[in-house]
Amino acid sequence: MANGFNPRDAAHLTDEDAAHVARRQRLLGPAYRLFYKTPVEISRAKGVFLYDKHGNEYLDAYNNVVSLGHAHPRVVAAIQKQLEVLCTHTRYMQDPLLDYAETLINTFGGELGRTGCAMFTCTGSEANDLALRIARYHTRRTGVIVTAEAYHGNSGAVAAISPSLGKKSALHPCLRMIAPPDSYRLPLAEIGRRMAEDVARQIADLERHGDGLAAFIADSVFSSDGLYVDPTDVLAPVAEVVRKAGGLFIADEVQSGFGRTGTHLWGHARHKVDPDIVTLGKPMGNGYPVAGLVVRPELVAEFGASMRYFNTFGGNSVAIAAAQAVLDTVLEDNLMDNATRVGGEILDGLRTLQNKYDFIGDVRGAGLYFAVELVKDRDRKVPDMDRALAAVNALRDQRILISATGADAHILKIRPPLVFTSANAARLLEGVDNALRAVQT
Amino acid sequence: MANGFNPRDAAHLTDEDAAHVARRQRLLGPAYRLFYKTPVEISRAKGVFLYDKHGNEYLDAYNNVVSLGHAHPRVVAAIQKQLEVLCTHTRYMQDPLLDYAETLINTFGGELGRTGCAMFTCTGSEANDLALRIARYHTRRTGVIVTAEAYHGNSGAVAAISPSLGKKSALHPCLRMIAPPDSYRLPLAEIGRRMAEDVARQIADLERHGDGLAAFIADSVFSSDGLYVDPTDVLAPVAEVVRKAGGLFIADEVQSGFGRTGTHLWGHARHKVDPDIVTLGKPMGNGYPVAGLVVRPELVAEFGASMRYFNTFGGNSVAIAAAQAVLDTVLEDNLMDNATRVGGEILDGLRTLQNKYDFIGDVRGAGLYFAVELVKDRDRKVPDMDRALAAVNALRDQRILISATGADAHILKIRPPLVFTSANAARLLEGVDNALRAVQT
Repeated sequence: MANGFNPRDAAHLTDEDAAHVARRQRLLGPAYRLFYKTPVEISRAKGVFLYDKHGNEYLDAYNNVVSLGHAHPRVVAAIQKQLEVLCTHTRYMQDPLLDYAETLINTFGGELGRTGCAMFTCTGSEANDLALRIARYHTRRTGVIVTAEAYHGNSGAVAAISPSLGKKSALHPCLRMIAPPDSYRLPLAEIGRRMAEDVARQIADLERHGDGLAAFIADSVFSSDGLYVDPTDVLAPVAEVVRKAGGLFIADEVQSGFGRTGTHLWGHARHKVDPDIVTLGKPMGNGYPVAGLVVRPELVAEFGASMRYFNTFGGNSVAIAAAQAVLDTVLEDNLMDNATRVGGEILDGLRTLQNKYDFIGDVRGAGLYFAVELVKDRDRKVPDMDRALAAVNALRDQRILISATGADAHILKIRPPLVFTSANAARLLEGVDNALRAVQT
Repeated sequence: MANGFNPRDAAHLTDEDAAHVARRQRLLGPAYRLFYKTPVEISRAKGVFLYDKHGNEYLDAYNNVVSLGHAHPRVVAAIQKQLEVLCTHTRYMQDPLLDYAETLINTFGGELGRTGCAMFTCTGSEANDLALRIARYHTRRTGVIVTAEAYHGNSGAVAAISPSLGKKSALHPCLRMIAPPDSYRLPLAEIGRRMAEDVARQIADLERHGDGLAAFIADSVFSSDGLYVDPTDVLAPVAEVVRKAGGLFIADEVQSGFGRTGTHLWGHARHKVDPDIVTLGKPMGNGYPVAGLVVRPELVAEFGASMRYFNTFGGNSVAIAAAQAVLDTVLEDNLMDNATRVGGEILDGLRTLQNKYDFIGDVRGAGLYFAVELVKDRDRKVPDMDRALAAVNALRDQRILISATGADAHILKIRPPLVFTSANAARLLEGVDNALRAVQT
């Protein structure tokens, strides 16, 4: 994992932190990872700031779950109130459940907006896992196509379609991968056509293996591939090829949804595609575990008739109260406009830094999601992981939290809450400047 | 699904309910099910009671998620407080996360209590899915053995080891099933030996197919098979056979954990087995989506070193606050003693009813979990689904909520909150008596 703490590199920690790390290793075991060379202890958080037990303040430019900011008053109040009233499952009639489903579905264009139905889970992984189950049941095929560094979750089924988990995590035999729309390395005008051709080739291969395409699934900003927000004429031609082969187009909005990209509530809308299934997660409850999907009902008809799908906590009364408060806040507080405006300031600032530091190969961004790609030289565009990780840690030492992404972990991943202000942006940019200066030599 | 509402059977509904059902079909689609012939609308809940919007009170003798009762003050307060302080993930150092892991691990006997480590997910399905991933990675095999009507969750991987989802839900090619320990139909003294022999036979078959046993997984009260709480000498011989074959013994405590059975915090402890992995879910947060597992660290060492496992919401600060409040309440409020005492009153009452109604074939129970098996005649023990479903609905009409279980849905499933009082028990028993009288002819 990019930007993980290595427990063997603990000699520089304070006694207190070293003791915590050792206790954590014992109690949580070997699969857990902490962020940063020097992990961060967090005791409380509010808005865009996190605080450790000594009262030190960290600027949060990373956590997209608390998309409205930490402890957002309206969401907190909605959950607090609902906890006292009711928290039960979807097998009793509850009006708020349907009210939220309606609010959510109405945010979509196209066929999903007209006829889509919503299904609720607790996590984005569960949403993608369910989408896969539906797609495979509907198509009677198992083949899936994803991008080369895709991450779609942690369940057995979705880990097997998540190449970014690394070579030791076995992929599904009928998973096929295509190159991401690398706007830094490929000719922009060709990306859409190339991607559609790649998909067509992989479909042919799946059919040659006696299977065929159940679904193409993509995060429409390609976060784990390195964040490719442009061009936006890429996914429509892909969807056409996928549809022609009888496969489903699944838009994974766990990263790009709920206004993250500023101009559009949903990432796939930037590409003007009309997905068969949209999956939702992370920011949906601003920290409350709620996720789900919206699907064309005919695709789930046989699945629904043949077997039950029940998710004990999925869509429970409190999850729905949280999700309703989040969606209402995004829309009523014009947070997408804020993301566009403040995001524009950050993008300008990062591009200015690109003129200053020749190891910045590329700067990409949409709304409040940014990638700063560090390279060893601009001509050959060779990824510079060491410098990127050093920069992430230099920012952490200034108490500004970001991380890294991409196959080579050489891309700074910056993803502040949607309530980020111009002042926050200025502090972030100053921090990035300081960090890049520190890692310049 | 047992006890599901059939939307085609809606003619008797009030206009208001019919409108809700139609709207729900449109917004949630065909995979969602409501309980009961006449679905129940719920607007608020407190303790052991649920209320509809007209103020009608329902006695909850079914919902094991809100195991401490609806809107439990201590749990509600813990969540409300934590929401204002911090809700973040496990990649920052947080003491309460480790404190809870320690509390939890300390409740286990044997090897897990001495060296186990905890991993957090959001749902029981995710916990079982992760347990399977770990078992398969560790053993390099895919074979799994479950009981004939097992249910272990809704993700792709665990649905494929959940035969109770029905014939249209395909099972994993290397899933093998054994008969449950049917204490009503099999000679009690032979059950343990038979089950161990069945498991050995299935292991041999898995090996014959070039695979082998990754894991045996069972809910130690066999809820979806029909609730077989006795005898308790069944799982130890099974575990021995499983271990000998190099497989892992996974105890699924989603149903039987957190004191449900009264005498023991964990169902597997009634069987005196020492599992390799224990999975947790439903009541863990009294409604807050939190789940997880406890595992021997050596089993997860290679998995943990080879790939990351990160569950965005799993073990977040609020989930941990909820889980800590739940476990503390179960232990400090002596809810297991209450379950044993009040459960004993209910069991006595149900056995008295068995003398009164000859279509009650068997009554089983432990703590506050009961099965009342209805049969067409006691000699042949033929399941009587129609009468069971009629009884469930007759109870619903008295505003007492239970459901049905078993392959033939002929077993009344009664599972009240652990805070059930003697007065609640008396009302439940009177209701069951009324319902059985109503369905007698």
